[in-house]
Amino acid sequence: MLKVGIVGASGYTGGEALRILLRHPAVEVMQATSESNAGHFLHTIHPNLRKVCSLKFIRMADLAPCDVLFLCLPHGTAMRRIRELEGVAGVLIDLSADFRLRRPEDYVTWYGHAHDAPEYLDRFVYGVPELHRKEIVGARLITGAGCLATASILGLLPLVRHGLLDRPEILIEAKVGSSAAGDTPQLSTHHPERSGSVRSFQPTGHRHTAEIVQELSFGAPPTVHFSATAIEAVRGVLTTSHVFLKDGVEEKDVWKVYRAEYGTEPFIRIVKERQGIYRYPEPKILAGTNFCDIGFEKDPRGSRLVVMAALDNLVKGAAGNGVQAMNVACGLPETTGLEFPGLHPV
Amino acid sequence: MLKVGIVGASGYTGGEALRILLRHPAVEVMQATSESNAGHFLHTIHPNLRKVCSLKFIRMADLAPCDVLFLCLPHGTAMRRIRELEGVAGVLIDLSADFRLRRPEDYVTWYGHAHDAPEYLDRFVYGVPELHRKEIVGARLITGAGCLATASILGLLPLVRHGLLDRPEILIEAKVGSSAAGDTPQLSTHHPERSGSVRSFQPTGHRHTAEIVQELSFGAPPTVHFSATAIEAVRGVLTTSHVFLKDGVEEKDVWKVYRAEYGTEPFIRIVKERQGIYRYPEPKILAGTNFCDIGFEKDPRGSRLVVMAALDNLVKGAAGNGVQAMNVACGLPETTGLEFPGLHPV
Amino acid sequence: MLKVGIVGASGYTGGEALRILLRHPAVEVMQATSESNAGHFLHTIHPNLRKVCSLKFIRMADLAPCDVLFLCLPHGTAMRRIRELEGVAGVLIDLSADFRLRRPEDYVTWYGHAHDAPEYLDRFVYGVPELHRKEIVGARLITGAGCLATASILGLLPLVRHGLLDRPEILIEAKVGSSAAGDTPQLSTHHPERSGSVRSFQPTGHRHTAEIVQELSFGAPPTVHFSATAIEAVRGVLTTSHVFLKDGVEEKDVWKVYRAEYGTEPFIRIVKERQGIYRYPEPKILAGTNFCDIGFEKDPRGSRLVVMAALDNLVKGAAGNGVQAMNVACGLPETTGLEFPGLHPV
Amino acid sequence: MLKVGIVGASGYTGGEALRILLRHPAVEVMQATSESNAGHFLHTIHPNLRKVCSLKFIRMADLAPCDVLFLCLPHGTAMRRIRELEGVAGVLIDLSADFRLRRPEDYVTWYGHAHDAPEYLDRFVYGVPELHRKEIVGARLITGAGCLATASILGLLPLVRHGLLDRPEILIEAKVGSSAAGDTPQLSTHHPERSGSVRSFQPTGHRHTAEIVQELSFGAPPTVHFSATAIEAVRGVLTTSHVFLKDGVEEKDVWKVYRAEYGTEPFIRIVKERQGIYRYPEPKILAGTNFCDIGFEKDPRGSRLVVMAALDNLVKGAAGNGVQAMNVACGLPETTGLEFPGLHPV
Repeated sequence: MLKVGIVGASGYTGGEALRILLRHPAVEVMQATSESNAGHFLHTIHPNLRKVCSLKFIRMADLAPCDVLFLCLPHGTAMRRIRELEGVAGVLIDLSADFRLRRPEDYVTWYGHAHDAPEYLDRFVYGVPELHRKEIVGARLITGAGCLATASILGLLPLVRHGLLDRPEILIEAKVGSSAAGDTPQLSTHHPERSGSVRSFQPTGHRHTAEIVQELSFGAPPTVHFSATAIEAVRGVLTTSHVFLKDGVEEKDVWKVYRAEYGTEPFIRIVKERQGIYRYPEPKILAGTNFCDIGFEKDPRGSRLVVMAALDNLVKGAAGNGVQAMNVACGLPETTGLEFPGLHPV
Repeated sequence: MLKVGIVGASGYTGGEALRILLRHPAVEVMQATSESNAGHFLHTIHPNLRKVCSLKFIRMADLAPCDVLFLCLPHGTAMRRIRELEGVAGVLIDLSADFRLRRPEDYVTWYGHAHDAPEYLDRFVYGVPELHRKEIVGARLITGAGCLATASILGLLPLVRHGLLDRPEILIEAKVGSSAAGDTPQLSTHHPERSGSVRSFQPTGHRHTAEIVQELSFGAPPTVHFSATAIEAVRGVLTTSHVFLKDGVEEKDVWKVYRAEYGTEPFIRIVKERQGIYRYPEPKILAGTNFCDIGFEKDPRGSRLVVMAALDNLVKGAAGNGVQAMNVACGLPETTGLEFPGLHPV
Repeated sequence: MLKVGIVGASGYTGGEALRILLRHPAVEVMQATSESNAGHFLHTIHPNLRKVCSLKFIRMADLAPCDVLFLCLPHGTAMRRIRELEGVAGVLIDLSADFRLRRPEDYVTWYGHAHDAPEYLDRFVYGVPELHRKEIVGARLITGAGCLATASILGLLPLVRHGLLDRPEILIEAKVGSSAAGDTPQLSTHHPERSGSVRSFQPTGHRHTAEIVQELSFGAPPTVHFSATAIEAVRGVLTTSHVFLKDGVEEKDVWKVYRAEYGTEPFIRIVKERQGIYRYPEPKILAGTNFCDIGFEKDPRGSRLVVMAALDNLVKGAAGNGVQAMNVACGLPETTGLEFPGLHPV
Repeated sequence: MLKVGIVGASGYTGGEALRILLRHPAVEVMQATSESNAGHFLHTIHPNLRKVCSLKFIRMADLAPCDVLFLCLPHGTAMRRIRELEGVAGVLIDLSADFRLRRPEDYVTWYGHAHDAPEYLDRFVYGVPELHRKEIVGARLITGAGCLATASILGLLPLVRHGLLDRPEILIEAKVGSSAAGDTPQLSTHHPERSGSVRSFQPTGHRHTAEIVQELSFGAPPTVHFSATAIEAVRGVLTTSHVFLKDGVEEKDVWKVYRAEYGTEPFIRIVKERQGIYRYPEPKILAGTNFCDIGFEKDPRGSRLVVMAALDNLVKGAAGNGVQAMNVACGLPETTGLEFPGLHPV
């Protein structure tokens, strides 16, 4: 049994890590921290854990040594605490953005501040198993990935890696639910204002662009045009990517590279049907699951390929992917604890 | 042209008053206050007013004399400012709860504090025209009514007034959207927490009970059992009331008293169809309108009558009713400025 | 391993049974029928089962003998097929309404037609383990319960059984999501018409009333006043029940009987908090779970007790409860396969 | 007073035309047809018209001569009936797709069938006043525009017309609510399936592409890459368009061309704020209004310009634009009957 702790467990990512880990058969959740909720039962914040777990939040200062520590802190916090936290556990899985980028200067460019622990950047592995499985095996420092970045990268990787694109230019339009903005109430998330909205909150300049460029750089970095729109949903991401195929590349060729890359991936499903109403990926049926569903359609009138990728931002886009990475790092079957298939209808 | 001002115009009720009054053909909106937004255009808070109005918020201290002043302040504020505000306008229409109840002790009981200006309570008229039209004509001090109270009272009044009930006992189950809780972000209104909820926020003890008892007291006060549930909606109230009819009273008798009371009311519609999907009142098609739709069904297996009443909490439940009262008070045609019929589908 | 089949597996209840049973460690799903989808993969109808199961729908005529057969047919069908279906499996679990009522005449009263197989009514056990666990052990014919009935009955049972009510009169206001109406498109479920609705679809005369009376009859049958309102949600039921306590009965006495009845129940949680935003039961956090959350509040101004009960209509209100009953009937640990704790936020 | 009739008035576009025209001060709605609802009150289908209008649906065969006839028939019907309908009214406003394209062969390409009345294509004016105001004045045959096309074209026109684009390539990602799919229930619009969906229903090949190309062809036709995604909303369109600016073109230049084109347009608002939560166009606050809100943001890291355009698909995207065109055609003030400013919050 792995002894696991969650730091910053009162947030949405922390809560989702708790939900998954509490039912993980090879894990014992021994501690969960929240400075403001210390002393209270987990279910006072995460009502789904009522009767599921009788732990109480503790303070970070009271953390005991453990095997695996999930860091679910606000962005900017883990980089300031990493030196002390490193000693607490054999494996650290950081779900914030603090160690996703390899180059310190990218933090200046995209996050607007210098990195507090740049010497760690090289030591962290970008913990998406579909991208870096071999490096994750046995890794001690693992970072999660951005939810929009994960969908974008997984959707496009086969095309880029296999050189099917005509030009190194990618346009990504991401739609995302409200939980991705975290658990802090503000006017933009106040229900009467947020409900039913289709809000262009980041037409340009979204930070996940940096991750996408980093992970899709096979040889030269691609030019990534990224836009993000908040839609009516609590959970869920759909990225719609537009790329242009080389002359002569047809859908069957595209099928081929997706099958080559993902044919044996347990959490990736190619969704592309001729009929029915779920012909392409849709995030709503992925709520609670670790799947990333991917589909594509070539424009019969040209060389454009539209790639759609869907996931649950709190699972495959955060805590679920973290558990998957933990499984890989610790030598457990990769799908352990992540078998929930999702609901329909929902 | 009536010169009108709105105090507390940055809130949802104030914004709705603005929307209606800006298109009211007999009104000139000359001022709108917001302490925290003074100096900013109205549309920075109410985006629907962009290009509709070029006024800026002012401070309350800068109010100029006017004909009608709408008070849209948080509960508890108007009673502290009433003495100064009274001098500003010929007619004051308070949309808070501060002057709805006639007896000062009811504020202690239901609002938990003594009233700051009890000498005003007798001077205000409870401004629902369907209840007190004659007293509103020429009135100088008018109070709005609670949104849930308005639906409850209008739904039940004909039955109580005409003595059709077997016992003075009324059970009301009210469902209400998120805008009724105001414009201040908090955890309970944070979109991920509030979205899709069916939340029993006040199973007992809701303050509107006091208004309902007050307005339905013909002779003895009825016993009112009231519960309130927040549902997924931004606007909208549906009250489902359960009462018991005297022996021998049938649906046709019920029809008769509703027609007698409401046959000529411009904003009350009896909705009771044998077929179709909108057989009974539904708040969603009332968004933006001043209608209160009322329907009823007698249980064929007993004497229970179920009465449903729907309205838009910000319109007939607040600002719209206030404008209707202003029309009555000032001798204008009652429906002026309130003709929006609502959308379908929506 | 129990060999299990699902008849009528293309509907929402059948799909949910599939979802749960496919992950049940003591079950092998060997067959699933759908006349109109025979030959197609399950995931063509239930997209959440993609990559989870590679079975195809078969016709009912092609059913092979098995240990347990779940019947998820439209109401009225199982009673016509029961004689042939009985032979297919050792245990039959019918999730329709066809065998829920003990008295044939109740079908005439509430369903408007005579029963086709009245001799079976006595042989079926009303399969809610919290109500009839002992009779379910070893039972061969088990019926599910109505979703609204389950919430109503579980919410009220302790009060009725322990004689805490002042009068045998119960008023239940049920709110329910759209999936309870089944998978057949019609105008009332067309998204533009159904979205955001608060629709009094059955103010009186709801069929589940019959089940509630039947199961809450300890000595004399109670008078049950039942109303049902469709709200904006896909899954979820909240019943708000209003009863009157005997003189002197206080909340602590109510706590006592709920603890006595449900203290060891794995799927019932008493939810009653002084603070936080999930103080009372809420269906949204129960989506996909087999919990029935129950809470109550006594009106400090009288003897009314408001009882709230929430569940997922497709799980504890249908397929999940069926699997729980199967576990009991077949001697498996009662919670097997039903451990999903639900999501937050959602 | 213009005597106006609506053909196909039971659909969503027809209902919206009714809502607007019934409150239009220069219009008398004298007839509304629906073959399947003939003889029934309008409000049996459009519940918002209860007490607003006491007309009944008639059959098309019973149409009387009138001044203006709105055709709100399913696509493909108007082209078969145009020869007879032309005689009924002085002005015909067709809100279907049947006369939007100028070239008959485009119907073969995009709609998959030959046109039934190709001789009419040249006689119809594409009735978006912001595009063709002069031709609409006095026109007798006017066609509406596609809702997604209207938003796309209005959003991009100033850039294309003023030659600000580096390449004739435009990528448009459109999000749209469920009412755009019409009023016929089907599985894809069944509430449990459609609710909360983010559905790529037309990644390529959407028919509105043809209109966009047609109307944005100044000199050479642009290459338009169009994708459409259905989102959780009943009403509302947001198009997010991506184009690339010529070297040296900055946001201030973009401002200039938008102001030049739209500075005096009554129904176009440029929405581009530095702060607040409605910084860019959002469809939800446009429900019921005839506005098309447009905003843009230049990527500081390159030459991409993201253009966002929002409207209500049933108003500016259909019936409202039709009424606006009627006003222009008949010499009425252009905004008559279209003054509803929209709701906030909503």
